[in-house]
Amino acid sequence: MRHRRSTTALALGIALSLPAHADEGMWMPSQLPQLGKTLREAGFKGDPKTLADVTAAPLSAVVRAGGGTGAFVSQDGLILTNHHVAYGVIQYNSKPGHNLIDDGFIAADRAGELPANPDFRVLVTVGYDKVTDTVLKETTGKTGRAYFDAVDRASKAIVAECEAKGGVRCSVANMYYGTDFYRITQLELRDIRLAYAPPRAIGNYGDEIDNFMWPRHTGDFTLLRAYVGKDGKPAAYSADNVPYRAPAHLALAKDGPRAGDYAMLAGYPGITYRHRTAAEFEEQIAWTLPTRVAVFDQLIGVVEAAGAKDADAKTRYAAQLQSLKNQRKRAAGELEGLRRSDAVRVRAEDERGMLATNAAAKERADIDALAASIAGGSAMRERDLLLNLFGAQSQLMRTAITLERLRLESAKPDAERENGFQARDHAMIEGVLKQVQRRYSPEVEKALLTILLTRYQQLPDAQRLPAFDTAFGRTPATLRQALDTLYAGTKLGDEAERLSRFAAAREGKPLAADPLIDLAATLVPVQLALENERKTREGEQLRLRPAYMRTLFAWRQQQGRALYPDANGTLRVSFGKVDGFSPRDGVQYTPVTTAAGIVEKNTGTAPFDAPKPLLDAIAKRDFAGTEDPVLQTQTVNFLTNLDTTGGNSGSPVLNARGELIGLNFDSNWESVSASWMFDPRYKRAVHVDMRYLRWLMGKVYPAPHLLKEMGAP
Amino acid sequence: MRHRRSTTALALGIALSLPAHADEGMWMPSQLPQLGKTLREAGFKGDPKTLADVTAAPLSAVVRAGGGTGAFVSQDGLILTNHHVAYGVIQYNSKPGHNLIDDGFIAADRAGELPANPDFRVLVTVGYDKVTDTVLKETTGKTGRAYFDAVDRASKAIVAECEAKGGVRCSVANMYYGTDFYRITQLELRDIRLAYAPPRAIGNYGDEIDNFMWPRHTGDFTLLRAYVGKDGKPAAYSADNVPYRAPAHLALAKDGPRAGDYAMLAGYPGITYRHRTAAEFEEQIAWTLPTRVAVFDQLIGVVEAAGAKDADAKTRYAAQLQSLKNQRKRAAGELEGLRRSDAVRVRAEDERGMLATNAAAKERADIDALAASIAGGSAMRERDLLLNLFGAQSQLMRTAITLERLRLESAKPDAERENGFQARDHAMIEGVLKQVQRRYSPEVEKALLTILLTRYQQLPDAQRLPAFDTAFGRTPATLRQALDTLYAGTKLGDEAERLSRFAAAREGKPLAADPLIDLAATLVPVQLALENERKTREGEQLRLRPAYMRTLFAWRQQQGRALYPDANGTLRVSFGKVDGFSPRDGVQYTPVTTAAGIVEKNTGTAPFDAPKPLLDAIAKRDFAGTEDPVLQTQTVNFLTNLDTTGGNSGSPVLNARGELIGLNFDSNWESVSASWMFDPRYKRAVHVDMRYLRWLMGKVYPAPHLLKEMGAP
Repeated sequence: MRHRRSTTALALGIALSLPAHADEGMWMPSQLPQLGKTLREAGFKGDPKTLADVTAAPLSAVVRAGGGTGAFVSQDGLILTNHHVAYGVIQYNSKPGHNLIDDGFIAADRAGELPANPDFRVLVTVGYDKVTDTVLKETTGKTGRAYFDAVDRASKAIVAECEAKGGVRCSVANMYYGTDFYRITQLELRDIRLAYAPPRAIGNYGDEIDNFMWPRHTGDFTLLRAYVGKDGKPAAYSADNVPYRAPAHLALAKDGPRAGDYAMLAGYPGITYRHRTAAEFEEQIAWTLPTRVAVFDQLIGVVEAAGAKDADAKTRYAAQLQSLKNQRKRAAGELEGLRRSDAVRVRAEDERGMLATNAAAKERADIDALAASIAGGSAMRERDLLLNLFGAQSQLMRTAITLERLRLESAKPDAERENGFQARDHAMIEGVLKQVQRRYSPEVEKALLTILLTRYQQLPDAQRLPAFDTAFGRTPATLRQALDTLYAGTKLGDEAERLSRFAAAREGKPLAADPLIDLAATLVPVQLALENERKTREGEQLRLRPAYMRTLFAWRQQQGRALYPDANGTLRVSFGKVDGFSPRDGVQYTPVTTAAGIVEKNTGTAPFDAPKPLLDAIAKRDFAGTEDPVLQTQTVNFLTNLDTTGGNSGSPVLNARGELIGLNFDSNWESVSASWMFDPRYKRAVHVDMRYLRWLMGKVYPAPHLLKEMGAP
Repeated sequence: MRHRRSTTALALGIALSLPAHADEGMWMPSQLPQLGKTLREAGFKGDPKTLADVTAAPLSAVVRAGGGTGAFVSQDGLILTNHHVAYGVIQYNSKPGHNLIDDGFIAADRAGELPANPDFRVLVTVGYDKVTDTVLKETTGKTGRAYFDAVDRASKAIVAECEAKGGVRCSVANMYYGTDFYRITQLELRDIRLAYAPPRAIGNYGDEIDNFMWPRHTGDFTLLRAYVGKDGKPAAYSADNVPYRAPAHLALAKDGPRAGDYAMLAGYPGITYRHRTAAEFEEQIAWTLPTRVAVFDQLIGVVEAAGAKDADAKTRYAAQLQSLKNQRKRAAGELEGLRRSDAVRVRAEDERGMLATNAAAKERADIDALAASIAGGSAMRERDLLLNLFGAQSQLMRTAITLERLRLESAKPDAERENGFQARDHAMIEGVLKQVQRRYSPEVEKALLTILLTRYQQLPDAQRLPAFDTAFGRTPATLRQALDTLYAGTKLGDEAERLSRFAAAREGKPLAADPLIDLAATLVPVQLALENERKTREGEQLRLRPAYMRTLFAWRQQQGRALYPDANGTLRVSFGKVDGFSPRDGVQYTPVTTAAGIVEKNTGTAPFDAPKPLLDAIAKRDFAGTEDPVLQTQTVNFLTNLDTTGGNSGSPVLNARGELIGLNFDSNWESVSASWMFDPRYKRAVHVDMRYLRWLMGKVYPAPHLLKEMGAP
């Protein structure tokens, strides 16, 4: 595969023309009309202009669902997303003797649909507007923390104004690293219910062994439904709610994908780093990724050991373990891929070329200052990684820190509070606090914290913090003693104890005493101090990176290439084709897998324990209507060269006519490094073939009412 | 891939017509003219009749070399074979500071060529004649041991008569399990020298990790040269010997293989079991293979542990370890493949169909008796496996048993001696005895025997033997004590001690006392008793299997398929094409690999430590003359669907014009089970592309004189 080059001149910023890498690009919808010629050459049959409007079909059907993406597939709010995106919803509804993870679930009718965990959200993007001038208005002459605060204040004001009309959540998205800002307006649907899930051994067939792998044979899909109040407005769960009337929904294609077919997807890719500096590439490859792999290995070991001894702990930590394994595998794959693509050298040469050719003196000064700021952040990297995981991988410790922080923030006027602690965030915080005890076991939490704090204890003095030393001491014995005392005494494992303190914290009132709360009172000030350092650095980089980006725009323009903003959780569109690849010399991966592969992999033991109804149906070859006419068998998954990253899970994959042919759920191992570097030889996305969904829902675990609602051909 | 069917009627025995499986078949040369139409349809451009004569080109160029195959590639006796076939030769010439395994070897001229280990032989087939009537003449009315002895006596008489003229070794080959017998006459070349070997990291690139694997990137070739006395007759090594004038030699093709090209190979496949009974298939899959894997794992563990502690032991056992690993991997692969091909069921159904349709009453009675005889042999299978390994995996123990057995046999008239102990075998025995101390360490031998004898001690009483119990006791402590005493006292580690006893044994004279010799005196009578049981059973099966084979012939005839004899170490020809395959759903293996794969696999650590000269040459892309015109790079290995098994290592692979395009060196993992069942979906053979050889010898480790001698294009 070779890059296609174009010599068409490009304008600066988003007024871009033909991309040189037709397959690379997570385009903002507003960029697509300018890419019209490329889109048509790639095979798109629709009008590129229709892809620019996030409030009209097809993009208005594409929603943010949980941590991923989903799409409306009926006018009554039915949402197609991944099994792994909805995993928490399925787990939340599982009880001993009623294991929806293992057994799957089919709601017999709408009354039978099961409410999701309270913090599960679906967001419908209804506005995507450029607000750069407003955001940067007060930054003139500022640097560091002041620059950060100016951007932050302006952003919050925009959000407050946007949300004032009610019923929507707003945010300001930073595009091109401070170069542009967009106001994203989203309807927040809070009553989400489970309509259909295949058994684990279909929805997660192959589990960690096949995760990130190709060839793949996973039915990684689930159907949810969004409900709203009788007034049609978003509302928390109520039995009286009614299905949400979707602004648009996608239609299932009759035919399936074939090699070379045009394909596109839309979704909410979380974060990419493709336009980071060469120094940041070097740090990622030489330090960050190897370290993450090592730490995750330890954390996974602890959770697995606990699960092996305690079935209850195993259930409670199932989602966290899956997430840890995913992150570990992703880090390892990213490292392997970046090395294979020789990313350090390639990015460094690219940057050298850019600087030699394009950097004006003023830009060059900013770029040098940016490099110095980045180096300053690296000096504390071990500590920052551990403290980040200290909150992210705990339940009660995080609860205590959240409550104490909420108490402090709530003493300020709402507009001055830290993001995530404003009045608008209270419902989300409450949702998180409510589910804690379903996902918590004191022994596992202590073991996880022991791993992190032991590593912390070994850091050089320059990176260590007095409050942590006071709390946990400097030796394994003091650490064990401290954790034992904290977890023996805390009452935060009790939902009522958490919620009563939440009620106080949101009012800025003192919190009832508790060992973890008392500890948080000493740690949160440290957190605030570190946050100030971070924001100062971020402010500097927010000020300085646009110089780097402008120089990069100019350099790409010389190369005849368009530029998209790095992913930031906003709605993006990618287009390309159905395409296999060669992972290594002598091996070619075909782009479509079939039911034969399910049988080949089946061992009868998890994760390759295909359910008997599935194996029987394959043996019967009862594929009429969904089998591939050429392969003459049931297809399962397929590959495209679409540009995706985490957050694109659940993205609908459309054909040239905009019909739904697939559901994105993974990347191949060779492309995990695409979050930093897009290598067209290896970057592929893995999708569920919609014919497999139609077959499963038609013949294997039938839900004819849902298929009919989706207008299945 | 589908079987091609033909409805052409077949005659019985070797008078066969078109094979239905064009790709399956290790054909006797005499069968090929009758397969002419199929050969031509497959793409062969020559006259099929030329393939029937083993004394004319091209088959007279194909020799048995060591445990594999080789081919003359110049008129001056230059022989092309595998690095792994000549591994013992290379190892024999390696010394500390002069490591030909690691460094490779290029003889600057003929005087610089290095003599092989004394027991290395090259055999040139000069006769291949049917002698069925003579062999079976005295069997009428006999059964069991008497039947065996009648065949054995007649065979020995044929061999003795054949060898009487001198200069040749003769044997009688049993085709179709006692149905037909052929006299094989072979010139025995005893002065073989090493002319060229690539470094280990080319000749065995990937080692055990890649062994049996595809895609492959191994330069598994070596050049030897055969020498004879000045009178042109075979002779032991002498500095005065002259290069052997080859009866024919193969010419290197200019062009390389491409997918779909006709290909054929000739060689000495060792043994296959394709025409065994359904019960034998069942035992192989349910018991023999799993047990072999378990025992080999233990033996490998012992040798590796010793090598890790002792560099000298590591060198001494390098060849044995490689052989053990090969056998272990082969057993595991065979098991996996037979299960994948559902061989137990397929063979059972085939046999049921055969018996229902074809078995005449007389044949049926013999077939039932055959089944009973096979079941009788199975009853002692654990013991027989262990005693077999007891000799095969030891050096001094085997030496003692060999000497004692030789002493007993030598007391008989030569014609009545057991095969392998006749006067004609003395030189071979002496060669084996001479190399013992290069491949022996007392600690490793004791450890290996401890594994085997510990298993033996755990057998049920019915399988145990008083002499072994007396020698080694029944407990771990007695076993350890016995081995320590034996190996502390034996002098057989000394070459002079072995050879002086050899001189006595070959005369039937008493052997000088030695702990191991004294032990052998008690074990050999047991060996003889077991041998009598085995020969009785073999005699019965020799008598009874032809009924099974006749019924199978008739059944295959009904199916429109020709039948070749199972492999038995005689010269055979296979034809088919260059062909990739799909190992599993979603994956396609391309049939030709390239130098890019060497770089991809290279880690710098063995076995993926490609030498710097090779990596540099790849980086320079200096492939002029040997690169593939379509792939535009240097090719390395390729795949065909040719029918091969162990013993085919080193087989020359020819194109439609009979020119040398490849050197067979392995099978893919998926086809290891082909020794029992040929599954055309998976059976492939792995070859060195002759363009890789030409490039290595031309540019990387140059030997222009040898390339010129080979007439390289």
